[in-house]
Amino acid sequence: MDNKKIKIIDVKIQDIRFPTSREAAGSDAMNPDPDYSATYVILKTNHSPELEGHGFAFTIGRGNEICVEAVKALVPFVENRSLESITGNMAQFWHDITGDSQIRWLGPEKGVVHLAAAAVINAVWDLFAKAEGKPLWKLLVDMTPDQLVSTIDFSYIEDAITPGEAIEILQKQSDTKDEREMALKKSGYPAYTTSIGWLGYSDDKVRRLCKEALDAGWTRFKMKVGSNLNDDIRRAKIIREVIGYKHPLMMDANQKWGVQEAIEKMKKLAEFGPLWIEEPTHPDDILGHAEIARSIAPLKVATGEHVHNRIMFKQYFQAEAFSFCQIDSTRLAGVNENLAVILMAAKFGIPVCPHAGGVGLCEYVQHLSMFDYIAVSGSLENRMIEYTDHLHEHFLDPVVMKKGHYMVPNQPGYSATMKPQSLNDYQFPDGKVWKEF
Amino acid sequence: MDNKKIKIIDVKIQDIRFPTSREAAGSDAMNPDPDYSATYVILKTNHSPELEGHGFAFTIGRGNEICVEAVKALVPFVENRSLESITGNMAQFWHDITGDSQIRWLGPEKGVVHLAAAAVINAVWDLFAKAEGKPLWKLLVDMTPDQLVSTIDFSYIEDAITPGEAIEILQKQSDTKDEREMALKKSGYPAYTTSIGWLGYSDDKVRRLCKEALDAGWTRFKMKVGSNLNDDIRRAKIIREVIGYKHPLMMDANQKWGVQEAIEKMKKLAEFGPLWIEEPTHPDDILGHAEIARSIAPLKVATGEHVHNRIMFKQYFQAEAFSFCQIDSTRLAGVNENLAVILMAAKFGIPVCPHAGGVGLCEYVQHLSMFDYIAVSGSLENRMIEYTDHLHEHFLDPVVMKKGHYMVPNQPGYSATMKPQSLNDYQFPDGKVWKEF
Repeated sequence: MDNKKIKIIDVKIQDIRFPTSREAAGSDAMNPDPDYSATYVILKTNHSPELEGHGFAFTIGRGNEICVEAVKALVPFVENRSLESITGNMAQFWHDITGDSQIRWLGPEKGVVHLAAAAVINAVWDLFAKAEGKPLWKLLVDMTPDQLVSTIDFSYIEDAITPGEAIEILQKQSDTKDEREMALKKSGYPAYTTSIGWLGYSDDKVRRLCKEALDAGWTRFKMKVGSNLNDDIRRAKIIREVIGYKHPLMMDANQKWGVQEAIEKMKKLAEFGPLWIEEPTHPDDILGHAEIARSIAPLKVATGEHVHNRIMFKQYFQAEAFSFCQIDSTRLAGVNENLAVILMAAKFGIPVCPHAGGVGLCEYVQHLSMFDYIAVSGSLENRMIEYTDHLHEHFLDPVVMKKGHYMVPNQPGYSATMKPQSLNDYQFPDGKVWKEF
Repeated sequence: MDNKKIKIIDVKIQDIRFPTSREAAGSDAMNPDPDYSATYVILKTNHSPELEGHGFAFTIGRGNEICVEAVKALVPFVENRSLESITGNMAQFWHDITGDSQIRWLGPEKGVVHLAAAAVINAVWDLFAKAEGKPLWKLLVDMTPDQLVSTIDFSYIEDAITPGEAIEILQKQSDTKDEREMALKKSGYPAYTTSIGWLGYSDDKVRRLCKEALDAGWTRFKMKVGSNLNDDIRRAKIIREVIGYKHPLMMDANQKWGVQEAIEKMKKLAEFGPLWIEEPTHPDDILGHAEIARSIAPLKVATGEHVHNRIMFKQYFQAEAFSFCQIDSTRLAGVNENLAVILMAAKFGIPVCPHAGGVGLCEYVQHLSMFDYIAVSGSLENRMIEYTDHLHEHFLDPVVMKKGHYMVPNQPGYSATMKPQSLNDYQFPDGKVWKEF
């Protein structure tokens, strides 16, 4: 459909929460009781209900209402605009919505206002992809290098990557894109499962889940650590007993430790041969991560789900502070900023392994990783997407997993459209699920 | 009064905005039209109205309502608590209110939720100081090193400063505190004025304001730069013509530049001999600031008003990324986190020159700097507090300036209590000032 004829006429914002804390799914050292939530945005168009942009930011419960309030402040950036007026200069749109001269004070480019921007920007990309009749990854893959790079705001990262360098990276992979697209359609994109080792699960449950995951074809696993070293060691033993030492096991401390503490703890946990330690300390501590990385080598460091913008990621690259870059589709302000980080990662030679789980993050990041493989990195080496097995049933186009791989999504859009029934039932605090509790 | 008998029984939150954009006061390269605003918190006690805690976070207009929403989410951390249950373990209180396991996802420790925490925490300190019958600086100065350090959460900064080291720093100055307190009471704390050089002012107005400031005894000046190099050069010439080269002139780019751009521009502006260039690039770019600092030496770099927590400041110190540390009383989460940064600054030998201006920031930071001088740094060398001349009339205990110095505040509390009339008239959007506009 012609983008000029598509107009955003209304913006609907919903506070959607799932009571996941009731079952300790998602529990880790810092987040004992998350209620996976979404600040959910619907861009109504002059072609609604056939054509709407759906997007969200992910939070874990309390405070989701703050994010909803922040989205309200961003409505003027999309309401009563034609889709073409946005997609015609995506970098400018991104710059404007993240750079409002007054709202910017509340960040800049971080925290609640950045999450809110992510929700709106993701909804715009969903609408764009639906209007083009393509899944988002395909919309991105089909862009020329110039077009793709024109969607990115390079401010504050030009000392690390210029638009010209980004175009070169994309051009290098252009000729062989079709091969990789075909390969992906056949085999999917590798994933690892985090669903075996939440901190709130009993030893028996962990053991059983590991066995079930192996049986289902999973070959990459992640466990939570950081609560108590003896517990971590006992649980790591159990997991290694079941999965063996052939399969990669990752560990995730969810920011629990200080710098020295992380170094000490990981020296103890090294015997279980983790592929990486994730979030060993506070996500703002770039130099702390670099110190940990130097001290525990050859063990490797991963982080990113709380790294809040491209400027922070730039420094992680520059300081050699991690070996795995874990972009988050709604922590960074939507698709555009994720593209900036994916391209920087390629320049610095760091594999991107997106954070997923929560609600809808798996649905999102599969598109980013598939684009990354086909058009940017050209490689699956050391690359995999996180996977957790909850809440997919609420989406119209949920991820399809086969033997530990994400299958290529085919429906137009960014896979983030929730079922109308779910949007009703899980509305906080008036939805059925919360009223009846 | 006995803290055990003081109970916080209600929390009132107000969205207060001043229409400063109507006169271009406060205009700079990134903020052309700020409406100085406060997310204003009143802790009502069982002794109201005689005894209440007033506090706020500073914003610049749109989005202040988001901050108000965030404070609502933090009410449970103070409501129905005795003051003693908070002041008895200030570090724990700080850790709890900035670390709620669900709300933390929206930061962590940054952006809207951190500003909201600042508003509440500052109100608690105001109440604490009023209950003790002392101005805040005096409450802090009179604490033993152990007591003072017990208010600080050292998580994620222990690799830079331990509680033991902080206590040592304080002990070193203990014996001579009285001398400095007397000296301050006599001469005040040095200040510089930013009110001469807002970007929105005409050349004639800048020239006139410089003359008036000199006549009033000011000897330290700051101008805004970053919009257009030729304009910056012309304005710098005008200012130097009036103030001469004997007096320090600071320049503030308000994050306008990229890293290389900042280096190039400052090489051109170096001829005007600025004492520092402030916020040459994005506040998250620690390594970028370090690169700029190395490249423009002996010119010096200052930053901090957008440096969002102690962990970011820690890295500024570690990376030698600045020569002047500009703490912000409401960007950092209140008094406690400012104390952490002041002590780190002492350890790393970097002078603290607080950001002020806006609304009420001068009222706040004078307390922090006076504490710093008396109990921590013991020195006024290279130290001064920013000053701007607007909006002081809205406070019950406004700053008192004499010949470019902050005079010591005497009234109990943290000087942040606004006049009831101002709280009525500037309430957004229903106050008189906004209704009649």
